[in-house]
Amino acid sequence: MLDDDLRLTARAANPVGTVVEVRGVRIGGREVVIIAGPCAVESENQMLSAALAVKAGGASMLRGGAYKPRTSPYSFRGLALEGLRLLALARAETGLPVVTEVMDARHLPAVADVADVLQIGSRNMQNFTLLEEVGRSGMPVLLKRGMSATLSEYLQAAEYIMAAGNAELILCERGIRTFEPSTRNTLDLSAVPMLHRETHLPVLVDPSHGTGHAWMVPTLASAAVAAGADGLLVEVHCDPSSALSDGVNSLTPDVFAGMVEQVRRVAAAVGRAIL
Amino acid sequence: MLDDDLRLTARAANPVGTVVEVRGVRIGGREVVIIAGPCAVESENQMLSAALAVKAGGASMLRGGAYKPRTSPYSFRGLALEGLRLLALARAETGLPVVTEVMDARHLPAVADVADVLQIGSRNMQNFTLLEEVGRSGMPVLLKRGMSATLSEYLQAAEYIMAAGNAELILCERGIRTFEPSTRNTLDLSAVPMLHRETHLPVLVDPSHGTGHAWMVPTLASAAVAAGADGLLVEVHCDPSSALSDGVNSLTPDVFAGMVEQVRRVAAAVGRAIL
Amino acid sequence: MLDDDLRLTARAANPVGTVVEVRGVRIGGREVVIIAGPCAVESENQMLSAALAVKAGGASMLRGGAYKPRTSPYSFRGLALEGLRLLALARAETGLPVVTEVMDARHLPAVADVADVLQIGSRNMQNFTLLEEVGRSGMPVLLKRGMSATLSEYLQAAEYIMAAGNAELILCERGIRTFEPSTRNTLDLSAVPMLHRETHLPVLVDPSHGTGHAWMVPTLASAAVAAGADGLLVEVHCDPSSALSDGVNSLTPDVFAGMVEQVRRVAAAVGRAIL
Amino acid sequence: MLDDDLRLTARAANPVGTVVEVRGVRIGGREVVIIAGPCAVESENQMLSAALAVKAGGASMLRGGAYKPRTSPYSFRGLALEGLRLLALARAETGLPVVTEVMDARHLPAVADVADVLQIGSRNMQNFTLLEEVGRSGMPVLLKRGMSATLSEYLQAAEYIMAAGNAELILCERGIRTFEPSTRNTLDLSAVPMLHRETHLPVLVDPSHGTGHAWMVPTLASAAVAAGADGLLVEVHCDPSSALSDGVNSLTPDVFAGMVEQVRRVAAAVGRAIL
Repeated sequence: MLDDDLRLTARAANPVGTVVEVRGVRIGGREVVIIAGPCAVESENQMLSAALAVKAGGASMLRGGAYKPRTSPYSFRGLALEGLRLLALARAETGLPVVTEVMDARHLPAVADVADVLQIGSRNMQNFTLLEEVGRSGMPVLLKRGMSATLSEYLQAAEYIMAAGNAELILCERGIRTFEPSTRNTLDLSAVPMLHRETHLPVLVDPSHGTGHAWMVPTLASAAVAAGADGLLVEVHCDPSSALSDGVNSLTPDVFAGMVEQVRRVAAAVGRAIL
Repeated sequence: MLDDDLRLTARAANPVGTVVEVRGVRIGGREVVIIAGPCAVESENQMLSAALAVKAGGASMLRGGAYKPRTSPYSFRGLALEGLRLLALARAETGLPVVTEVMDARHLPAVADVADVLQIGSRNMQNFTLLEEVGRSGMPVLLKRGMSATLSEYLQAAEYIMAAGNAELILCERGIRTFEPSTRNTLDLSAVPMLHRETHLPVLVDPSHGTGHAWMVPTLASAAVAAGADGLLVEVHCDPSSALSDGVNSLTPDVFAGMVEQVRRVAAAVGRAIL
Repeated sequence: MLDDDLRLTARAANPVGTVVEVRGVRIGGREVVIIAGPCAVESENQMLSAALAVKAGGASMLRGGAYKPRTSPYSFRGLALEGLRLLALARAETGLPVVTEVMDARHLPAVADVADVLQIGSRNMQNFTLLEEVGRSGMPVLLKRGMSATLSEYLQAAEYIMAAGNAELILCERGIRTFEPSTRNTLDLSAVPMLHRETHLPVLVDPSHGTGHAWMVPTLASAAVAAGADGLLVEVHCDPSSALSDGVNSLTPDVFAGMVEQVRRVAAAVGRAIL
Repeated sequence: MLDDDLRLTARAANPVGTVVEVRGVRIGGREVVIIAGPCAVESENQMLSAALAVKAGGASMLRGGAYKPRTSPYSFRGLALEGLRLLALARAETGLPVVTEVMDARHLPAVADVADVLQIGSRNMQNFTLLEEVGRSGMPVLLKRGMSATLSEYLQAAEYIMAAGNAELILCERGIRTFEPSTRNTLDLSAVPMLHRETHLPVLVDPSHGTGHAWMVPTLASAAVAAGADGLLVEVHCDPSSALSDGVNSLTPDVFAGMVEQVRRVAAAVGRAIL
């Protein structure tokens, strides 16, 4: 066992497995859920075109960042409240539920007003007061694995959220930091079966941040589903070369749609289906 | 590009891709090759029963170590010449070509006498004089990625073998060393598409060493094939609990046969087949 | 150069080097500053006895956590406001300026009321909104390196604080995450000269978290000073075996005093002195 | 304890500590030994000038590679037998004992004919048959830590040499592989006290390979001695910019001599002396 003090997140606490339901989309069941959209919300046109494209391509949820954690203070850091407004608009147009990141407890009321799922990013995996706040919110939470978090530490971070009273929790492997320089991170797909064994929570995979190369995303998306992922988090942009962040990771709508078709076949091969 | 001084191993040197043929088994073509057998050759009975079992289960090549690199000098280190004799016997019984490790250039004549494919283990990935010897042998070589080798260093090691005149070369991702303690290594499946892009050589995956957990091997084997692996290297033992090495990694024949069935479906889903 | 977009933290922005002055204690000058105290404030008696002991042993600043980031939600997480009160008391008794961690922007007014230096812990190195808040506070800040932060990422995090208008900034190497299991982290002492070359900010070393073994702390403290550290951050507890956190890291007052004597000799050998 | 099956290398097997004596130079005693010279032997003039320079600067042993493990087959790989001849010449001129690497058991007779200490490089730390050969040789051996070897694995590799009957064994920390890109490796100075606690063998540090930056070598050399290193292995070249390998690591004779003076002061500060 990864840790003997996992009281709420341990598999034994809910042997049949948790299904998180978001506006009718079930995460953690037989269906594999595809969540897609741009890294950052950049403009109304960019957000709506991406949202329509990912819906057409087979996504059942929408992602997009209004608040962006960026390594440098001089990078584009998101549209904040205006970004949230555009996410709400994109949901209204497409009907897709929205996943978006909250970086600061003080932004939580505004983000919670729009988001269907609150994302906690890798850099905040051990921002413990934020974990408790999203725990208390009672809203569905997508907690990404920290860049150098062991699986034990990851589940202990999840335990903070559940200990605050929130069982609507989704995990996401997004690549870990290693010595290999040719990929942005090293996607740790063995984390998927290990987490499924140790916890009852659904486990997604983010091949976009996990690899840092758009051309590699469909292949790793297939591998993730073969490894048992309950869903994928994928960056899509209608014009990746003009994206204000993570353009090199982002699929065009066409490539995304092709990816979904391939992933659908892999899902069937392992007894799953794409939602 | 990973490295601009890859003259012989670079994709551009053979854009259509290399197929290595071993007694009629083609590695690097449309078919995914399954190579299975015990970690170490332990006895005639153990080796023959494992060989028959993996053949029945769907393997098209046989693996087994007569010379075993072991972290501690006090561990079982293989049967050496007697192990080679038993591998030859297993091939005679099953018709399966044999992959076995050579750890020392001085053992090469004896190993080459029996092996159909010479394996260079992770710990010897940068044993440059050994690379040149197996290069000069002209025999098919399976070169495993070093535990902390970047892909650039890995291809430069492969370049040693090709520069010595040997194009019958197969690569194998087997997990890299990271901070995560719950798996023996971290299987780097993004290495598969990256190597396919950068080199024309076939790429196998070893989920047994890559994870260190037998229960996880079938899942990661599926993921590896979804990631485009040209084959799998899998440890199988008829009685894992009595194995003299790597029992915790080893599948029983039943689990192995089930794994092959699942991998067959995944291979079909990505346009491949199991040989 | 580590990064070409370091505008305020780059060495070129202040070639003579920054000295941060805290109630008369100068950090970044010729003198090496020793900051010591317990991991967590646990009680009035524990805090005062530790404060008096580190002062007697040669410390010129006091450390102690009122808010403790802990991997598990079920661990002791600090006395919060009561801890801050005890830190103020310890300062009043000893005259030593106080370094204490702020984990959440909402705690900042209360922490700033007591702290002389605001510490940002490793887990919050990329908590960008918190970085900006402590930047705007104008108070001296001690920013610890993240567990898997490259030096480039570290300086970009420092840049957030300076870009918010705060030049009273101190860095601290505290060990990075690697594959080696025998130490809690791997103390990266080459970071000290590299940071001194790339930035004008003072650089401390924390051998307590960096190694996770009290017995090893004096040796690595000496090595850190030989590597050019501008100061040390050391955990001291009058009864380590009863400490509520990090007892295994903590020096007794006697060992601490002996460490200071040894470090004093090493400082002299490299042209520095202990403050 | 790092490992409970260390029979011969464990501290308990020789609590007073091992001193390896090489032509009168004692490694592992109170004196810190400085071993210096070029990465590779390139020519008579280069080798002799470097040898005389390091002797003048304070070295008590000479290093230089006749057989060079190189990542790429197209790099300069050493002068082989001619390199050995030049090493013998340099010893004759200076009286300094010679440390040189053996990469292949088949080279051992020739290398042993010249070397006073046989070096096993990082890439061969788990070349087990080579470990046994140098073990059987009975000659002093300097075994470098592998790039991603845990200290437990490192001591088990040392155990191979001692189990073959050779107690004349010296260890050397030379940097480990991590995610940090600004240094070639991350020098793990906590390995020095950990090894001293766990084994009776002398422990050197190689700051040249450990950092990959000549300008950083003197600082890390000082830190290594403060950490308790029994000696240093340093690359020196009379004209680093023309070196056929590792020029960026190599000190000029002047910088080397200055380094020795600084290291001498640090050694005194921790109760040691430079031999």
